[in-house]
Amino acid sequence: MTPRISDVSERGIKASAEATSYFAAVIKLNERLWSPEDPEGNIVMSIAENRLTVDLIKDKLQSNLSFPDSVFFYDNTAGSAKMKSAMIGLLQHTFMKGLKLNPDNVTVSSGCGAVISNLIYCVTQPGEGIAIPAPYYPAFDFDLTCKNDAVPVAVHLSASDQPYDQQLQAASDEYLQTSGKRLVALLVTNPDNPTGTVYSEQHLLQMLKWCVQNKVHMISDEIYANSIFKPDCQFTSMAVLASGAEEHGLNPEDVKSYVHVIFGLSKDWCASGLRVGCLWTLNARIQAALQNVNAFYGVSGIAQHMIADMLEDLSFVDKYLKENKRRLGSAYDTLAGALIKAGIKFTPAAGSVFCWVDLRSALSQPTWKAERQLWEEGFVQRCGFIITPGQASHASEPGFFRICYAIVDHETILQLVQRLVGFITKSDAERQQVPLWIKKACMQKAKQEIEADPTQPAKPAFE
Amino acid sequence: MTPRISDVSERGIKASAEATSYFAAVIKLNERLWSPEDPEGNIVMSIAENRLTVDLIKDKLQSNLSFPDSVFFYDNTAGSAKMKSAMIGLLQHTFMKGLKLNPDNVTVSSGCGAVISNLIYCVTQPGEGIAIPAPYYPAFDFDLTCKNDAVPVAVHLSASDQPYDQQLQAASDEYLQTSGKRLVALLVTNPDNPTGTVYSEQHLLQMLKWCVQNKVHMISDEIYANSIFKPDCQFTSMAVLASGAEEHGLNPEDVKSYVHVIFGLSKDWCASGLRVGCLWTLNARIQAALQNVNAFYGVSGIAQHMIADMLEDLSFVDKYLKENKRRLGSAYDTLAGALIKAGIKFTPAAGSVFCWVDLRSALSQPTWKAERQLWEEGFVQRCGFIITPGQASHASEPGFFRICYAIVDHETILQLVQRLVGFITKSDAERQQVPLWIKKACMQKAKQEIEADPTQPAKPAFE
Repeated sequence: MTPRISDVSERGIKASAEATSYFAAVIKLNERLWSPEDPEGNIVMSIAENRLTVDLIKDKLQSNLSFPDSVFFYDNTAGSAKMKSAMIGLLQHTFMKGLKLNPDNVTVSSGCGAVISNLIYCVTQPGEGIAIPAPYYPAFDFDLTCKNDAVPVAVHLSASDQPYDQQLQAASDEYLQTSGKRLVALLVTNPDNPTGTVYSEQHLLQMLKWCVQNKVHMISDEIYANSIFKPDCQFTSMAVLASGAEEHGLNPEDVKSYVHVIFGLSKDWCASGLRVGCLWTLNARIQAALQNVNAFYGVSGIAQHMIADMLEDLSFVDKYLKENKRRLGSAYDTLAGALIKAGIKFTPAAGSVFCWVDLRSALSQPTWKAERQLWEEGFVQRCGFIITPGQASHASEPGFFRICYAIVDHETILQLVQRLVGFITKSDAERQQVPLWIKKACMQKAKQEIEADPTQPAKPAFE
Repeated sequence: MTPRISDVSERGIKASAEATSYFAAVIKLNERLWSPEDPEGNIVMSIAENRLTVDLIKDKLQSNLSFPDSVFFYDNTAGSAKMKSAMIGLLQHTFMKGLKLNPDNVTVSSGCGAVISNLIYCVTQPGEGIAIPAPYYPAFDFDLTCKNDAVPVAVHLSASDQPYDQQLQAASDEYLQTSGKRLVALLVTNPDNPTGTVYSEQHLLQMLKWCVQNKVHMISDEIYANSIFKPDCQFTSMAVLASGAEEHGLNPEDVKSYVHVIFGLSKDWCASGLRVGCLWTLNARIQAALQNVNAFYGVSGIAQHMIADMLEDLSFVDKYLKENKRRLGSAYDTLAGALIKAGIKFTPAAGSVFCWVDLRSALSQPTWKAERQLWEEGFVQRCGFIITPGQASHASEPGFFRICYAIVDHETILQLVQRLVGFITKSDAERQQVPLWIKKACMQKAKQEIEADPTQPAKPAFE
């Protein structure tokens, strides 16, 4: 037998290369973070994480520790009965109020990335498309392709254009024509990442109808559903909308088969490190597949038990969510206030942990190259801060950036805006004169180090 | 667009069907378990689980609860620095004593099934073969095929035949000839599942040499390495053997690329519910791929922290492992003693949680059909007990069964042997007269229920 050429398979090599475009910068800048005591430190605000209420969840989880023997034994691969019930209890108490839900329809996995990956595995064959309203969460590209080879298809829906169903149909036709494959699912994040906006019920219904009528899976990622801080915001869960779908002339069996909701603890519960994501679906065939597949994605029994204990305490849930929304809203207001004062335009957010800012006027040219240049040579290298470039989110045009404001304190938010404004108000020539904060060579070295030593500590899973 | 024919993809449907052949019986018999108070209860001894020392691990984990904030945030996708260090500490303190190990070479995942699945993903393309000395762990078939489409190739190595390298070469040649694809890895479980035996250093070296010289991945599953209860047993970790490979004329770079060790907490630590499995490899390209892929398979930060705290206490480790081995050995002795007394042959075990019994003489004919009949109509339906049929482990011939003795107490072990002996010492005609314990219709109903309602509670992941 002639030996193999490589010790890693083609798909293994492909998996190694699928990190986001701005990972090296995050690692480098994280080495020395800004504080009032270290004014030359860096600012990292590109990670979709909420750290504002860690004190509350930590206190609660530490307050009670007593395990039954069963947490140490094999259990239901789709999640423990206690955990699934607690999750259903949370949904019925919050954004799926009024629904009668069955814990058996929940699958609990090690994070929402795993949930999406597994669901996509079950509903696609390689090459089939997943429509995603863009701009969208940068890591969806990895979630959909790794081990799946599904194809993310960015769809730039326009609220002022035709109804969404017609726009989706056009996207579907185009994908079929160009690839010879189908769009088999629509993946919507509501509240939205990266804009922080919430879909109107009218638009959600247009999407739901189009999906069910065309037997396209309607996947609603509601991971930020309990992070809506705008008081008068009307949020509609896809599960709630689907429960009344018959009134809209949809076949109830098709609704059962094609509507799926994703939710979890990472964002609303300030707990990306807990690695808990869930799928709610009434599709028994998908449940059957996940019952097997999820054996590889189980959450530790002790973690399930402690988290379920916490969620069962609904008075804590109320208290926690109220305070979390207050802190999120307060951080957002600080950022929004500073941006308004500086004359920087942004999309008004109702929830989530993002602010989508419009820096088109700061580009030297309206090109992706100019966006990358402003981001890399300007923000990262001359200003020592990192926010998410819009290209990573498949923005419709260059010049938009995502600011993640829930991983830092208010002082850091203000420091970011100060650095940002200080730089973009300069002329191109003046910008060139700003001394390098992070040396280019240093960045290249960071990139090389990561490539050479992929076991670099503290790599964030999702950015 | 014409709608899809099915709401689940082909690969999704395939995943639904991949449970083990004896799952329905496990679920059914678990409904009413034997105890001295319920002499008509069933006995389930087909699950590869250790429940003997849950009191010790529970007490230890409950004794200390204080989290740093960092456990709630995104962390290294390959495992926290603390967890990886604790794992390395455990290895260096136990079965890899004498080695200087680097925590960066460890990846921590949600169970060893996930570890194997991901490693196989990185080293195979669909259709490529993985040689596994048989009989082997029934769930390897699922681990290797689900999301991977690698092909498990049972190899019946004979200690009295040619050296192992020659037998492996013959298997490799045959696979290439029949499938047109390569055998790209050898997956060895040591101590072995289902026999409980430990490989000799000579045989391990033959396998290591053949693998490295042929650029075939040598994957050593050492999940039972701290469960060896036979006092004079010589266990050699593949990592230890590989560290001296240069003396045996092997290229050190190839050894780095092709040797991988799997270990975890499920068996040695009485903790299948904790979902913690690890890979140790020096292959930087595989590490790089896993750094990304493992984002879907992370262990909850709170679980990692608590478990690492426990493993860092080496005096507890010593005390725990000693007591665990004592209890495992004692349970094994009870089973072995009863089998010897009854004249039932079995493979003498040195470790693990299994006993491989030879019931060939109890078969009506030397066929797989007769084995299935004895198991289903005899053991399950007329005797109300379940042990693992050898066919599920790819035994070389019909009539062998695996008994998992570490999930029950000594009384249950004796009750099992009593029922077993009572049945197999009967003639075929007499066996037909034994009244049905579990009605056939009842079993069929259980199977149908599982198929109709795949969210059945308490499905074990690995059996």
